[in-house]
Amino acid sequence: MKQSRMFIPTMRETPQDADSLSHRYMLKSGMIKQMAAGIYTYLPITKLVLNNIEQIVREEMNDIGGVEIHMPVLHPKELWEESGRWQAYGSELMRMKDRHDRDFALGPTHEEIVTALLRDELKSYKKLPLTLFQIQTKFRDELRPRFGLLRGREFIMKDAYSFHSDEASLDETYNDMYRAYSNIFRRVGLNYRAVEADSGSIGGSHTHEFMALSEIGEDIIVYTDESGYASNIEKAACIVPEAVDSAAQEALEKVPTPGVDSCLSLAEHLNIGLMDTTKTMVVNIDGEFVMILIRGDHELNDIKVRDYFGAEDAEFATDAEIRGIMNAAPGSLGPVGSSIPVYLDHQVDVMYNYPVGANTDEYHYINVNHGRDFEAAGTGDFRFITEGEKAEDYSGEVKFMKGIEVGQVFKLGTKYSESMNLNVLNENGRSVPVLMGCYGIGISRTLSAIIESHHDDRGIIWPKSVTPFDIHIITANPKDRDAQDAAEKLYEALGREYRVLYDDRKERAGVKFADSDLIGLPYRVVIGRGIKDGRVEIKARDSEETVEVEIGQVTEYLKANY
Amino acid sequence: MKQSRMFIPTMRETPQDADSLSHRYMLKSGMIKQMAAGIYTYLPITKLVLNNIEQIVREEMNDIGGVEIHMPVLHPKELWEESGRWQAYGSELMRMKDRHDRDFALGPTHEEIVTALLRDELKSYKKLPLTLFQIQTKFRDELRPRFGLLRGREFIMKDAYSFHSDEASLDETYNDMYRAYSNIFRRVGLNYRAVEADSGSIGGSHTHEFMALSEIGEDIIVYTDESGYASNIEKAACIVPEAVDSAAQEALEKVPTPGVDSCLSLAEHLNIGLMDTTKTMVVNIDGEFVMILIRGDHELNDIKVRDYFGAEDAEFATDAEIRGIMNAAPGSLGPVGSSIPVYLDHQVDVMYNYPVGANTDEYHYINVNHGRDFEAAGTGDFRFITEGEKAEDYSGEVKFMKGIEVGQVFKLGTKYSESMNLNVLNENGRSVPVLMGCYGIGISRTLSAIIESHHDDRGIIWPKSVTPFDIHIITANPKDRDAQDAAEKLYEALGREYRVLYDDRKERAGVKFADSDLIGLPYRVVIGRGIKDGRVEIKARDSEETVEVEIGQVTEYLKANY
Repeated sequence: MKQSRMFIPTMRETPQDADSLSHRYMLKSGMIKQMAAGIYTYLPITKLVLNNIEQIVREEMNDIGGVEIHMPVLHPKELWEESGRWQAYGSELMRMKDRHDRDFALGPTHEEIVTALLRDELKSYKKLPLTLFQIQTKFRDELRPRFGLLRGREFIMKDAYSFHSDEASLDETYNDMYRAYSNIFRRVGLNYRAVEADSGSIGGSHTHEFMALSEIGEDIIVYTDESGYASNIEKAACIVPEAVDSAAQEALEKVPTPGVDSCLSLAEHLNIGLMDTTKTMVVNIDGEFVMILIRGDHELNDIKVRDYFGAEDAEFATDAEIRGIMNAAPGSLGPVGSSIPVYLDHQVDVMYNYPVGANTDEYHYINVNHGRDFEAAGTGDFRFITEGEKAEDYSGEVKFMKGIEVGQVFKLGTKYSESMNLNVLNENGRSVPVLMGCYGIGISRTLSAIIESHHDDRGIIWPKSVTPFDIHIITANPKDRDAQDAAEKLYEALGREYRVLYDDRKERAGVKFADSDLIGLPYRVVIGRGIKDGRVEIKARDSEETVEVEIGQVTEYLKANY
Repeated sequence: MKQSRMFIPTMRETPQDADSLSHRYMLKSGMIKQMAAGIYTYLPITKLVLNNIEQIVREEMNDIGGVEIHMPVLHPKELWEESGRWQAYGSELMRMKDRHDRDFALGPTHEEIVTALLRDELKSYKKLPLTLFQIQTKFRDELRPRFGLLRGREFIMKDAYSFHSDEASLDETYNDMYRAYSNIFRRVGLNYRAVEADSGSIGGSHTHEFMALSEIGEDIIVYTDESGYASNIEKAACIVPEAVDSAAQEALEKVPTPGVDSCLSLAEHLNIGLMDTTKTMVVNIDGEFVMILIRGDHELNDIKVRDYFGAEDAEFATDAEIRGIMNAAPGSLGPVGSSIPVYLDHQVDVMYNYPVGANTDEYHYINVNHGRDFEAAGTGDFRFITEGEKAEDYSGEVKFMKGIEVGQVFKLGTKYSESMNLNVLNENGRSVPVLMGCYGIGISRTLSAIIESHHDDRGIIWPKSVTPFDIHIITANPKDRDAQDAAEKLYEALGREYRVLYDDRKERAGVKFADSDLIGLPYRVVIGRGIKDGRVEIKARDSEETVEVEIGQVTEYLKANY
């Protein structure tokens, strides 16, 4: 493609209003143009990259037996009322009325449509399993669209839905999808982790989020480099520490601690480390109060607490509630003489001679030991993991990284088939609801995530698997006829084996090089002064390695190195 | 692909509510499923065919330098107000409000978006010409959606827009597009004609409609088999007849014609042919009345009349107006002694001794001759052409056929660039509006048009260029283990060179054959009883030619014949 005929409106200045690196680089390299908040036109370079990503997704979906369909954008309200989501989805669901005043949603996801599609056609378990997918524009009326294509209101998704008559079949497809997603994100060049996620109201831990590691993500991912281990920080389990040799138990002592209202001030006051202190919290577990002790340098994880007690809700008690129960300020609480059950985090369970609040304002006990000074009702994992601890799979020390969710696999079970009556006759002739899975990939979001992790300070560095072109041919001096002739010939020759962008514009060399760095194709061939000796320069965008070769050797060099 | 894993819900009964052949066959062969009026899910077979059509369109667009982009579905109201179409487009424009109460249209076409896109980026004529295209879902709130995908409310279009600094460049791209469109419709297997169309309010004859010939079209196309000649019937010119040898002029005579009020009753009364009579019409041309004579067997074409007089409007005079001017009934009008100018159709110009109304109720003149009995103010082409006449390019006799509009190429000129301020600096540094062209293809509509012209009474017969699969493998008896093993092996072997659909379902042979005819792949390989002698049957869907070959020879046979 000749660059003069392509539409790549690069910018000299870095746009200041863009709020993420990928957003800035997409604007600066002429890849997108905003039409309204969160609504973009994808310019030629973007479209080429999207086509490449979509092709990889299609191949991997086909490979696991997925069949491509295309469902409508306009969803009749009646279907969303059946599932109960017409109300539940809230104002993120875009809605419209047609000329006959009928209500439609603009599809943000297609569970309702695909369930309605199948319920008229599926009669018997013999037609199962079935996996349908589509690649399509979706709509979500984000309150605050931002980060360019990462959080837009109109975006491209791959969504897939699978249908099964038994759990084993759902498990199999779920695992196939997991594998296909791993292949997809590996192939497009993302450093990703599959994270077991909280499935919210659906229940069960039957969902994984695929997170591209990135500094601008909104979730914290806990992972190790030594294995595939990754978890959302809310879910990351802390390993149970080995018991330490029992130390001599010293005498319990009540000491005044004037002005102490935190673990940090207690540690200073007692001249000990923060990790030698403890934190006592009162938590309301579905209406029952309990006391939980964690180490002073740790943070309570309310989701773990909720799960430990199998509760609906776990909330910190208010100051007034604490005063009512313990007759002490939150900074002076402790388990000794507590009227409510006391639970210990595993890390407190292995501590000796530690300080706790005395349930008297501005007094603490020191040299406390559980078993002697109070009895614990139980021990558990009640806290957030910290960076550098051992991972729960013992593969290594955990690191923290923010992540961008680029995909999710999800066992829906019978949520939609029950509310919308998608049943089949099973082997015994009984009507049973169909088991479903759903599997999404944000295609335009994946593109942004690729840029977030493949760039330097001059521009994008496309992975070869998704690059819009393989090679950028540039003439340094557009007035040099010999260079131009050589470029045209090379463009034609390389075009037979590679996708080539040829910068034939009448621009200064500096502008062309800057644009070329921004656009970020894997190889650049510069036809400059050396052409008078039949030599051109080849530069790799990633390694920045530069070589001079004879013009007749360019194809050979690229074949050996591309 | 194994048919058991594909989703092809064929029907045994022909759906009665479908209103076109393609609609019926798409429902019956499990290609589409309606979600709401004019809104469909495209099932796997449809998606495969659409992908093939889109690929052909992409190739031809790229071939003429078109660059692919992807514009938003949601269009801010402000842009449509700039062009004046927010009101003008009427209730076919689907509209919605976002959560902030801002108005958007769901794009039925993208002139506003593409013009807004370019006006910020295009500064100089040096960046021109430029051709951008996209393949995308579009929306139009049809009052009465019908014919399946032929007139839907949500449909897939290819739309392209070109930008130029001078007419010559616009002409060149227009011609390139015309050629690309011809290639596309030829490649997908349509019998099409490019028809010069009425460009309506835009002015000029700078538009062609590409019509797929089909019985269910809404427009009548006039064409010949001998050349590419085709025209909308409104536009099809009648050739000027050669003058016949002058006959002896007989004496003018006024005869009573009681009860005669039409050419047909006049012909009966006088015992002459209908084509020997004349029809006198009074037409209101922008407020001035004229009289036009055409032959009794012809129909007046008001568009030709309007164009002849260069008028805004040409309307038949009312009975009251006629009575006021001529003091006679419409059935007794004639040019002799007329107080308003008289015009003759070319075919009347070569008549002698013909009858006309006498401007006295129930009286006619016979043996009238213009020049002697009255003077004509002019002659012209005022009528619709009839089937069997010579075409205006003299290539042969015209035929009539209905047509489905599958594409249109259009010179927009400066309509949008002027209203929306898309200007560039020209060679002299002056700001001038950009010339634009727009070019559409209905992708989903093209698919329907293909089925309308490629079928028999058992189902679809896909052209090889767009067929969803090349070969259908069928085992006649699913309980025959040998046949099944042979089928599996053949499926694998053929799969290396062809796209194969393998009907592995446990259905009766009759069901499989009926489905196979419906689905309509080019070749069917049946593994039946002959397999015990190592022989299978190959049948071509179009010619119905059937051969029996050894199973080892199938690939060879197909290579020679596909």
